[in-house]
Amino acid sequence: MSVSKAPPHPLIPLSIEESHRARDIVLGSHKSSIVDFRAISLEEPPKSELQPFLDLESAGKLQASTPRPARLARANYDVIGRDKIAKYCETLIDVQKGTIISQTVVEKPAHAALTLKEFDDVAAAVAASSLFKEEIAKLNIPEKYEVVVEPWPYGGPDEDEEWKRTFQALCFANDTTSGNPDSNFYAYPLPLIPIMDARTREIIRIDHLATGGEEDGLSYGTSTGNIMDRYQPAEYVPELLPGGLRKDLKQLNVVQPDGPSFKVTDESLIEWQKWRFRVGFNYREGATLHDIRYDGRSVMYRLSVSEMTVPYADPRAPFQRKQAFDFGDGGAGICANNLQLGCDCLGHIKYFDTVKTEGDGTTTVSPNVVCLHEQDNGIAWKHSNWRTGRAVVTRHRELVVQFIITLANYEYIFAYKFDQAGGIMVEARATGIVSVVSIDAGKKSQYGNIVSPGVLAQNHQHIFAIRIDPAIDGSENTVVTEESHPVPTSAHRNPKGNFYEVVQNEIKKSQWLDAAPQHNRVIKMINQNKINPVSGHPVGYKFTPMPTQVLLAQPDSIQSRRAQFAKHHVWVTKYKDGELYAGGRYTLQSQDEIGGVSDAVKRRDDVENTDVVVWSCFGLTHNPRVEDWPVMPVDIMQLHLKPVDFFTENPALDVPSNRNLTSTLVKEESCCSKEASRL
Amino acid sequence: MSVSKAPPHPLIPLSIEESHRARDIVLGSHKSSIVDFRAISLEEPPKSELQPFLDLESAGKLQASTPRPARLARANYDVIGRDKIAKYCETLIDVQKGTIISQTVVEKPAHAALTLKEFDDVAAAVAASSLFKEEIAKLNIPEKYEVVVEPWPYGGPDEDEEWKRTFQALCFANDTTSGNPDSNFYAYPLPLIPIMDARTREIIRIDHLATGGEEDGLSYGTSTGNIMDRYQPAEYVPELLPGGLRKDLKQLNVVQPDGPSFKVTDESLIEWQKWRFRVGFNYREGATLHDIRYDGRSVMYRLSVSEMTVPYADPRAPFQRKQAFDFGDGGAGICANNLQLGCDCLGHIKYFDTVKTEGDGTTTVSPNVVCLHEQDNGIAWKHSNWRTGRAVVTRHRELVVQFIITLANYEYIFAYKFDQAGGIMVEARATGIVSVVSIDAGKKSQYGNIVSPGVLAQNHQHIFAIRIDPAIDGSENTVVTEESHPVPTSAHRNPKGNFYEVVQNEIKKSQWLDAAPQHNRVIKMINQNKINPVSGHPVGYKFTPMPTQVLLAQPDSIQSRRAQFAKHHVWVTKYKDGELYAGGRYTLQSQDEIGGVSDAVKRRDDVENTDVVVWSCFGLTHNPRVEDWPVMPVDIMQLHLKPVDFFTENPALDVPSNRNLTSTLVKEESCCSKEASRL
Repeated sequence: MSVSKAPPHPLIPLSIEESHRARDIVLGSHKSSIVDFRAISLEEPPKSELQPFLDLESAGKLQASTPRPARLARANYDVIGRDKIAKYCETLIDVQKGTIISQTVVEKPAHAALTLKEFDDVAAAVAASSLFKEEIAKLNIPEKYEVVVEPWPYGGPDEDEEWKRTFQALCFANDTTSGNPDSNFYAYPLPLIPIMDARTREIIRIDHLATGGEEDGLSYGTSTGNIMDRYQPAEYVPELLPGGLRKDLKQLNVVQPDGPSFKVTDESLIEWQKWRFRVGFNYREGATLHDIRYDGRSVMYRLSVSEMTVPYADPRAPFQRKQAFDFGDGGAGICANNLQLGCDCLGHIKYFDTVKTEGDGTTTVSPNVVCLHEQDNGIAWKHSNWRTGRAVVTRHRELVVQFIITLANYEYIFAYKFDQAGGIMVEARATGIVSVVSIDAGKKSQYGNIVSPGVLAQNHQHIFAIRIDPAIDGSENTVVTEESHPVPTSAHRNPKGNFYEVVQNEIKKSQWLDAAPQHNRVIKMINQNKINPVSGHPVGYKFTPMPTQVLLAQPDSIQSRRAQFAKHHVWVTKYKDGELYAGGRYTLQSQDEIGGVSDAVKRRDDVENTDVVVWSCFGLTHNPRVEDWPVMPVDIMQLHLKPVDFFTENPALDVPSNRNLTSTLVKEESCCSKEASRL
Repeated sequence: MSVSKAPPHPLIPLSIEESHRARDIVLGSHKSSIVDFRAISLEEPPKSELQPFLDLESAGKLQASTPRPARLARANYDVIGRDKIAKYCETLIDVQKGTIISQTVVEKPAHAALTLKEFDDVAAAVAASSLFKEEIAKLNIPEKYEVVVEPWPYGGPDEDEEWKRTFQALCFANDTTSGNPDSNFYAYPLPLIPIMDARTREIIRIDHLATGGEEDGLSYGTSTGNIMDRYQPAEYVPELLPGGLRKDLKQLNVVQPDGPSFKVTDESLIEWQKWRFRVGFNYREGATLHDIRYDGRSVMYRLSVSEMTVPYADPRAPFQRKQAFDFGDGGAGICANNLQLGCDCLGHIKYFDTVKTEGDGTTTVSPNVVCLHEQDNGIAWKHSNWRTGRAVVTRHRELVVQFIITLANYEYIFAYKFDQAGGIMVEARATGIVSVVSIDAGKKSQYGNIVSPGVLAQNHQHIFAIRIDPAIDGSENTVVTEESHPVPTSAHRNPKGNFYEVVQNEIKKSQWLDAAPQHNRVIKMINQNKINPVSGHPVGYKFTPMPTQVLLAQPDSIQSRRAQFAKHHVWVTKYKDGELYAGGRYTLQSQDEIGGVSDAVKRRDDVENTDVVVWSCFGLTHNPRVEDWPVMPVDIMQLHLKPVDFFTENPALDVPSNRNLTSTLVKEESCCSKEASRL
């Protein structure tokens, strides 16, 4: 039994047919049990098979007889046997051959990633819980409010807790007076967290939350009166804004009369301004980039947002368990927004869809999860010749691959941006609604900031890990740190004291590194086998590790143990198939990071002149401002990857410097008083 | 003798009439001498006079009888008496009254800032110099090249040098074969630096430059053959590019059918999206911002780019003197580009002109030195309600005040960007042509990188100082550092180890501070007299000091002594009229920073709850890449000033979330293969 049609490109995600075929093979292997699917997705081929294929493809030498990597599917699912106990399985299937390659029961201490179906279970379990009803009744919430239950992963269980699949739910009240379903319920946090046992789907406990202020320390605080009296509305949907919308913002349109400059072929192959790469998408990482080449030369094998963790710093139990791993726990791809034309970007937009796996293993299309567009970002380079007065100036055009995820209250906007000077930027924008809890009226807290009456936005961090799998003119690369150091004054070396020394250090064994901005530490990924003919130095790409604050939780805390990746800025590891996740494959309810970068570096692999992977971790210590409420303005973090002696000149030199003919002088009547504006 | 017409707003630069009046008063005070003007510019009023005026203006309470600050002009000029020795004078004139307020002869160790006229003198002196002719003849440069002389400030003289006004000139050869006057002469650096005595306008010395490589250390190196043989062309003007321009970049237009959202009145008053401020311009700082208010509340009294220094790290004499102060030495305003529609920005552009002072004290208009426009910068805030699926998303519109300066080989693009969430960003983009010297063929150097055959781009730093004169709801402000620190695990304070502590420290005396990203150090400028009603904390603005590398030159070096400001990230000083320049008023040929921030902090002024000024210094250690040649892609640095508990909610909440109706789905024929794109 084999499929005769030519298989898709090895990097194209599973087709619906392939996915269904994988499902059938899984179902066939568990005939006497109930199978509840979590995800079915493409298992990317081993690099040893894929790399030669990509090199031939890039060289235009693919032939019908070229060996192709097998099309593999990874199916994640629960098997429920006669004992009614769900066993979590992962099965690797050769979709073409119709065979099972491996089948694993994933066990303690790992938990399967959560599904949105499980979140629905939480809401249903809370609704059905008499325990919850009793507790909520004690709050005497007036009739006009409905209770909103927001499921969250349980976070890292405490050391002494039983290994059990569990969910927690934050609770809010929604003022139904307006009749508007988008009234902002986060303005009314309730001091209860019901806990669900995922096996029985029952609420097994209600955690009560402290609502005290500075003077109360870790203790509960005291509220008087009805809890709802402390709050005030905090709306963000336009029709509920008390003051309405501003009226003085005029249209700004991006118009591309000749269409976009990019080309998309073969479903996922993108070509733009000498760049050529594949875009992938999976339920866990969202959009991933593959086989990035510039003018035929390879730059990256794979580039992805690997993980992020959001630990909260409120020490009052059970808030230590507020710690999301937004990629590993639930999957960024699963939480991706379906983007809308004219809202999430301007200009000519190309969207990409994905599929989601249902519980029965069928798939449904989720449209517009990735958008692709061009944008202008100011001046790219300029020089004016002082002798002739002639200026040559080019615009900095960018190609943007963007996806946006919503995780309950919060959103992240991720973008990969390519420029014409060989640069790639990975951008993360944090927005959405900050996570809040109730605080007694009139109190302040050392654990966060009051952003609305009775509403405490807790201090927290966001720490991201970007996985960079470089292929600088081939896969044999070396990581080098470069620093600039002062040099003592001396007659023979630094007579006038102005000299500083540039010091390079090769990374020989897998290890972590921290940012060192005081030394201008730069991470270079170079190919020692290929020398730039102009400078005589190896070709490379570089980035400056962002010197943001690392994870603040104590080393022995669960928060810290399970997020080792967040404790350093850079990790250098030797490539290993499937080693994609900075915090490990299984983060849900983890107590330790297992199989993440901290384990990978422990191998002490040789990483010189070999296939190396570099992980860049950075973040945001977010002590909320009032201005972050009710929806926060974006906080923007950017990782810049730039060529360093990779090219023999500025690769953007041939960008046209044409004057933009649609730019317009503002007319005086439209904005300005008639007098001349002369400063 | 008084002028009857109502005087212009106190912050509007001098009119041509005012400037000429100041000139006449100066000339009248030096009747028996020759006066050679350098600059005539508005002397901003003392804050004690201006602030009450601005407050009344903002409150709409200005009346004809309101006292107005005097219109003052500062005239900088040389007086040449019978002894033919030029004395440098600065005179302060009350333009309305027609009186002289003060007249100072500026003497050793200060030098007047340079003028472009003096640069012309350098070129003429070199052309006339037999010494130079002799030396250049020795190079046997083929006929097809013409010698280009590029005047530079002399930098900081060595300790043992005489106090004398001097200029240096870098020399290049220009290949005239193409007949194109914009052929890039920087590809042909010559190893000579003629030195001019500014008094006699004669070349007094030719400095010979080392051209050796790694193995030659500080010594000269050895060249064989003709120096010109080592070089290759490196063109950047489109018609000279050997490969021509790329042809696959399609138009991207910014179209604003209803015109811009901003309003400009009274020559320099800008209103946009609840922001209201004045833009100023002067020969030294370029564009400055004044009296920045949001919705009627004051935020900043003044915001400016104060200074920058560019020290070069090549230890071989005389390169220790390659150190520009691009604001103090010559004036950024003087070097400002005359911007062009459709080249330097897109959309609807409002330009502002300035005037330049000629040697005879008359003024000429320099058009389009500042541009004002709006731009889109992605998503501003977004939230999707997971219960209803409804997304609300707004665009991040920015208002940009931009000016661009060219300093011989190099350019800087400065922009002040306002957003709708109360944020102000100061951006510096570095571009242009890196400074290069000759290196023997085939050699490498520890002092820089070979960017073109025979061309060494020397390692250097760029360090900028932004002057922030906050007025957070009034001028009585306090500077506070805020840091986030881990807290040891303990039952009573941090039982689960997840707590981190937010620690604030008030700055009580004028002082410097450094960035501390490992502690997430944030600088807050707060008003302790005004409490945010929601959070209970003082209203404020904050920024994260950019943890870039500080000046690397040795503390006892001239480079370091004259650029003290570049040695720390933040300086907190008490406001003092006229104290505008981080590196001091007189930087040209300085050996020490005099009257800069390092002297200001030595006063140990009380800076609590008073009129305080904050200086943010950051930079770029620039070890050039081959990709920086021949014109470098922009390197972008951004200082973000953000409200912190200044508002009672996200001030961008009322930005409309309308869908942009001109955004377009890309048509498959225009870019994409016909198959559906599904990942």
